[in-house]
Order: sequence, then C-alpha cells, then structure tokens
Amino acid sequence: MSEFSWPARVYWEDTDGGGIVYYANYLRFLERSRTEWLRSLGFSQQAMAREPGVLFAVVNVSVDYRRPARLDDELLVTCEPRPDGAVCMRFAQRILRAGETEPLVTAEVRVACVDARTMRPTKLPETLRAALN
Amino acid sequence: MSEFSWPARVYWEDTDGGGIVYYANYLRFLERSRTEWLRSLGFSQQAMAREPGVLFAVVNVSVDYRRPARLDDELLVTCEPRPDGAVCMRFAQRILRAGETEPLVTAEVRVACVDARTMRPTKLPETLRAALN
Amino acid sequence: MSEFSWPARVYWEDTDGGGIVYYANYLRFLERSRTEWLRSLGFSQQAMAREPGVLFAVVNVSVDYRRPARLDDELLVTCEPRPDGAVCMRFAQRILRAGETEPLVTAEVRVACVDARTMRPTKLPETLRAALN
Amino acid sequence: MSEFSWPARVYWEDTDGGGIVYYANYLRFLERSRTEWLRSLGFSQQAMAREPGVLFAVVNVSVDYRRPARLDDELLVTCEPRPDGAVCMRFAQRILRAGETEPLVTAEVRVACVDARTMRPTKLPETLRAALN
Repeated sequence: MSEFSWPARVYWEDTDGGGIVYYANYLRFLERSRTEWLRSLGFSQQAMAREPGVLFAVVNVSVDYRRPARLDDELLVTCEPRPDGAVCMRFAQRILRAGETEPLVTAEVRVACVDARTMRPTKLPETLRAALN
Repeated sequence: MSEFSWPARVYWEDTDGGGIVYYANYLRFLERSRTEWLRSLGFSQQAMAREPGVLFAVVNVSVDYRRPARLDDELLVTCEPRPDGAVCMRFAQRILRAGETEPLVTAEVRVACVDARTMRPTKLPETLRAALN
Repeated sequence: MSEFSWPARVYWEDTDGGGIVYYANYLRFLERSRTEWLRSLGFSQQAMAREPGVLFAVVNVSVDYRRPARLDDELLVTCEPRPDGAVCMRFAQRILRAGETEPLVTAEVRVACVDARTMRPTKLPETLRAALN
Repeated sequence: MSEFSWPARVYWEDTDGGGIVYYANYLRFLERSRTEWLRSLGFSQQAMAREPGVLFAVVNVSVDYRRPARLDDELLVTCEPRPDGAVCMRFAQRILRAGETEPLVTAEVRVACVDARTMRPTKLPETLRAALN
C-alpha cells in the first residue's frame, strides 16, 4: 500500500496561547487524512454507517510531537494504512510542513471497525479489506 | 425567571495564538450554562432525546465581544431564559470574569425545540414550558 | 468588492452528538474564509502581527442557523467585506452546501484592527483599506 | 506522589456524530487535569511564562481508548506525575466515569519544560522539581 497524503492549513482555531498548534488538534489533522484516504477509495463513512452499518473507532494513538506547527503553516498529513487482524486497521501517520522532509509530528493510530448500533467490534467490510491488501 | 449562572475556567484548549479565548469558543461556554440550567431544573438532554424525543437546536446567536478572556481566567456564564412562542426559548447570556461586574461577552441566543428524528420544529415539552414561566 | 468564497469539508471533529455540525464550529468555517480572503489579497496575519504590529479581533457576530450541515458535506463559505470606519471591517458571510443556492447559515461579522501588543483598537493598515474600496 | 484527580462533564461540544466523545477531545480533559494539578501546587502557567519564562510542551502521548464517554457523563480525570530527567515530567493519566473503577481511557503523557521565548528545552524550575519528589 503506498502512502496517502492530504493537505491541511493551520488557522487561528488550531493554535493556542503558546502561539503553536494545540496538542490535541493535531489529532484532528490525522483524522482528516484517514477520512480522505477512505474517500479516495470510494468509501463514505456516512454511507457505511447505514449499509453495512459500521463505524470506525480509534482504539489507541501514540503521537510524537517533534516540532510545533504555527499559524498559516501549510501541512501535509500522510497516512499509511495496513490491516491488523479481521477487525482493525493500523495507520502510520506523519504531519509535515509542505516542502520539508522532517516531520513535525509522527503517529501510530489503531482503528477498529464497530457495529454502528451496538458499538461492538465487528469485521472490516470485505471491500475495505480487499483495498487494504 | 431569575438568572442562572455557571462557572467556567479558561484552559489552553480555549485560547488561540493571540493569547486570548478564540471567538468561537465562547459559544461553548454559553452552551454549557444553558445545559446546566436545564439540568438544574431536572432535565437531561440525553433522556429528552429518547422521551419525548426532542433536541434543542440553536436558531440564531448574536454575540458582543467586549473584552477578551485569558488563560486561567475564572468565568461566570449567566443564562436568563424566557419563552418565545410554543417552539422556542430565548436566552440573554453574559460571560463575566469572577468578581467583576462588567461582562466580557454578552449574547442573545434563540433555541428551537426539534423532533430528534426529523429535526423539524416541535412544541416545547409541557414540563419545560411550565418551568419557563 | 465582489464576493470571495472558500471551500470547507465537514469532518467528525465538526459534528456533535446530534449528528450535525456543532453550532460554535460554523464560526471556525467563517473565520477560515475571512483569513483566506486576506491571504488572497496578499496579507499574512503572521506578518501583520510583526509589521505593522496589528491583529484582528472580532467585535460582534450575528449568526442565523437555517439548516444543519452534516458529516462529509462539502461547503462553500462566502465572505463579502466592506469598510466600517477607520478601525473596523464588516463581513457578510454565508455557508452553503456545494451546488446549492439556499444558504445553511448566514452571518454578519464585525472585526476591529487592534494593536498586537496593547490589544487596543487602531487604524486599519492603509494597504488593507485600499484593498477594501 | 499520590494521585490527583479533577472532574469533567461531557457537553455537546465534546461529542461527535457517533454520539460519543471525539477522540481528540479526551486530550483536552487530560490537559485540564494536569493544569489543575499544577494549580493545586500553587503554580500558575501564566505566571511561569513571565517568570521564570517557561512553558510546558507535550513531547509525546499514548492513549488507550477502552470505552466511550457520552453526553452528560460525569468524568474524573486522574494525573500521576513523576520526574523524568531534568527537563521532563511524565504523567500516567486515567479518565473514569464518576463512581466507576474501570477507566474509559488511559494515557501516558510526557511533557517538557521549554523556554517561553525560544521554545527550546530547559530545566524544570527548582520549586516544581521539589514538588515532584
């Protein structure tokens, strides 16, 4: 699976009083990239919640903050997915300033497929598993 | 109806790179106070969404930003509700720094009762209307 | 001054438990459009904060929520600025679902130019005033 | 060092369209507890930023999401700090629903002391190091 990447711009809403992006807000950027990766494969999370009735729930994240992003920064948020059992996906992700090669942030994110009604773990849809391999 | 008030503390998450509370985030403080006012009357929004199946949707807000709140500030968020027809409530709200009398922010918020499934306007529950008068 | 418009996508971060965009989060979309309008004229807020040392502070907002935006929606956020005295700008803004003509949200936003150190009102930079007319 | 704990209430702002707390927003709750732990020891981050001129920057986080928190939930956010070299602190944190013993979320957070101007790592203030031991 090759690497997917999605741009993000840093706005006032993302920064905190330290003049840099608030540490929780990088997780939003990471989620946007995962969502856009799914969309790039033709998967709409709205549609999947209805049929086959599944949502994706983050099981754990591990984030390394190396250097801060600042207001007006143009970021690239990468997303390298791989299967992890029948129920989970694992994403290696990086946030880079556009044009740079040293990431500002690196992250590992594990996501489980859950039944939209019961929120219990359930198998990844076959079509998605096929796309992951 | 007398005035209700609820405390809020300013954390890093609320501030932006200008060193003050981000303008959208005051609307969170306003909503917390309305929610706590409802709770103080014995209304749980979770329970109301199930039975009688209603949610509250903000129809419009008008906010005056007079002076900024800053990190660590202890705020008081007031909420003066009044009925506005069969479907709506209107809230006059203020955000003050604890111990001060000049508000940092004043707001008018109009909220409609909507059917939780259709999101269409519906009458305020009788018990809530009784509490408003 | 003709109308400026900027796209926004609705992600999980923007929604709330009612399944729609949280009312405060539309203000983030509105701000992004104002920021991008400034950028389209060649103004960087980071640079302006250093030289001539000014920031923009929202003085008041008035927002009408007509219909909700939902997860995955592609939005257009318009921004029609006009001067308002020597210190302020006024923005008429709308949020539309892409391809639609009826806005989901309309807003009036008044923004003051403030000294970045004292946070006191100060005249709009000459170059910006020229661009507004 | 004994465990510190701070309450948090789940509001609409914290939830997402899945009806549960958005995964990034637990990091806000974690930060509030760390801030209140500092405050309980008499440290104001505003004051420390001026004198001795230091801020705290999260270096990495690792979060396990076990069960979701929902609207109206009353949470307890614990914070068990320990020193980690001359520059860093390490926090073991948990988020529990009030009255329960099984945590919804567990986290490890490493925080560095940085110079407020240069954002470079710097030694933890002596008074804070004393409080940590």
